Amino acid sequence: MSSSIETDAVIIGAGPVGLFQVFELGLLEIKAHVIDALPIIGGQCMELYPDKPIYDIPALPVCTGKELTDNLLKQIEPFGAQFHLGQEVSMVTQRPDGRFDIHTSADQHFISKTVFIAAGVGAFQPRLVPLDDIDRFDGTQVFYRVKDPEQFVGKNMVICGGGDSAVDWALYFADKVSQLTLIHRRDDFKAAPKSVSKMRELCDAGKINLKIGQLSGFEVHDGKLSELFVTGIDGAKSSVPCDVMLAFFGLSPKLGPIADWGLDIDRKQITVDTEKFQTSTPGIFAVGDINLYPGKKKLILSGFHEAALAAFAAAAYLSPEKTIQLQYTTTSTKLHKVLGVGNTE
Amino acid sequence: MSSSIETDAVIIGAGPVGLFQVFELGLLEIKAHVIDALPIIGGQCMELYPDKPIYDIPALPVCTGKELTDNLLKQIEPFGAQFHLGQEVSMVTQRPDGRFDIHTSADQHFISKTVFIAAGVGAFQPRLVPLDDIDRFDGTQVFYRVKDPEQFVGKNMVICGGGDSAVDWALYFADKVSQLTLIHRRDDFKAAPKSVSKMRELCDAGKINLKIGQLSGFEVHDGKLSELFVTGIDGAKSSVPCDVMLAFFGLSPKLGPIADWGLDIDRKQITVDTEKFQTSTPGIFAVGDINLYPGKKKLILSGFHEAALAAFAAAAYLSPEKTIQLQYTTTSTKLHKVLGVGNTE
Repeated sequence: MSSSIETDAVIIGAGPVGLFQVFELGLLEIKAHVIDALPIIGGQCMELYPDKPIYDIPALPVCTGKELTDNLLKQIEPFGAQFHLGQEVSMVTQRPDGRFDIHTSADQHFISKTVFIAAGVGAFQPRLVPLDDIDRFDGTQVFYRVKDPEQFVGKNMVICGGGDSAVDWALYFADKVSQLTLIHRRDDFKAAPKSVSKMRELCDAGKINLKIGQLSGFEVHDGKLSELFVTGIDGAKSSVPCDVMLAFFGLSPKLGPIADWGLDIDRKQITVDTEKFQTSTPGIFAVGDINLYPGKKKLILSGFHEAALAAFAAAAYLSPEKTIQLQYTTTSTKLHKVLGVGNTE
Repeated sequence: MSSSIETDAVIIGAGPVGLFQVFELGLLEIKAHVIDALPIIGGQCMELYPDKPIYDIPALPVCTGKELTDNLLKQIEPFGAQFHLGQEVSMVTQRPDGRFDIHTSADQHFISKTVFIAAGVGAFQPRLVPLDDIDRFDGTQVFYRVKDPEQFVGKNMVICGGGDSAVDWALYFADKVSQLTLIHRRDDFKAAPKSVSKMRELCDAGKINLKIGQLSGFEVHDGKLSELFVTGIDGAKSSVPCDVMLAFFGLSPKLGPIADWGLDIDRKQITVDTEKFQTSTPGIFAVGDINLYPGKKKLILSGFHEAALAAFAAAAYLSPEKTIQLQYTTTSTKLHKVLGVGNTE
């Protein structure tokens, strides 16, 4: 386990609202650590629609998910938030001293005075192989991500999926494994066209065995996964040898462990007030798509507002003796200093 | 009086929040008329800080008031809102049929099903001449704007102020009036440098009589304003002949007539709920700096959120029988059609 990190604020979720939470806390001189289950910054925007235009961000007539993320990253640059990516928050519990213990799936531990849940629709997790009981091979023969490619060299490998991950790993492993089978439900690949044509060349060269169809079952020998069955579009069944399976069926969001943190939850969302956007546990705030209040709309621009008010509430929670004044970035020399801009005399 | 305009929505205020209200109503296919007391679009942003950077608009790391306004104007282009500028809303009353009568200072009359008050800190009005009792000449000899320049030809004119309005009108009238005096409290003009140097040339040529100092009194002959007294920085008093006075001391916001529309008001702000941002009168919504609710912060980004929720509430108010579904601009072909973008098959 890494050593514990003590901080004033932990933000769970590095989507647009989590990023803007960094900004609003930053203006109030509160530093934050940001945790996300995805290995990248940007949340849903980057995972689901990095290149699709968004039209309803105020004063940005059109931007893609990636541009939105890039703009927000630029905006929070002055605040030096630390990101902890590719790890899910497994547990949040309140300590006797009132602070919160936060543990992640990467064994990182935080002790924070406040927590901001900006987890959107939940943590993105790989969609599982749709075969009953195959999960008993998870992590030994069935994998949803590749951590150590060396361990697969020389094996009979099956890769499932039609996106970039599936095709790119197929290209990577084609001449490193004993036999490589790529299974996809239809002969139409979402991966980059360049990668797809390279993949088809390797199929023609006999380096990749392409199977179009649905996974329909598996065979076990000596307690190990040994074969996978595929049912073609024409209904014909076939089998492929399988020592190792890489499954890339995409990601789907799950509320996951958040449901067990003792917060009031209604229809898979965390209920908050509209003054502080605080959960049923003082010191824990919820902003963006994950929260619920009367009138709630799952709009990014609403998350921005919620993050602003939650930041002011957190500042008051952290320093009850201080009066927190609203200052304007246009005129406040204090905020100019914090932002590192303009004439800060 | 112009003929009445019947509409679904009238927005009072063409600042950033009023503009974004057009957008959010537009997405729900509600057309709006926008009224503003200023002759320009943009509200405070354009009046008070057109060129100053703003840093806290989400995903716009920095923009000026003018850029913010331009971006919003571009964003609402698809919705063809009609603007009625340079006129203040004097009265809003509910009709027996439940709709609202809206009258403006330009004698325009609207009949609207819903009203959105996005009036910021109130209507911007000219700062008055700081001389007791001189207001009895308002509109006959003392003017805060020039509507009909012809009426001043050949008179003894005094122009007060140091900004663009004062200097530009001084240049305009220099060879059209009998005598032109320009009074400003200090020898430092905010007007465009080019206009200022032209003005100084006209002073040297004897066309403009420049007085640096404070207005300290006036003289009346036969019931008419005849002279103004000026106290110089050195304390010396002098007088100038005055048939007509144009005063350009800048604008200051006033809640004004809004206070008399029968809405619940607390500390000069209109109280609203946080679900619909509706006032105490159903069908009238208040968004942006003019409203008040627990936790309220006068932030532009909060106004954007309020405008979004008010639009959904208004859609339900206008069509109680319809279910209004939240759609996303990224994926909804219906919204793409409304926005006039992308593949709308």
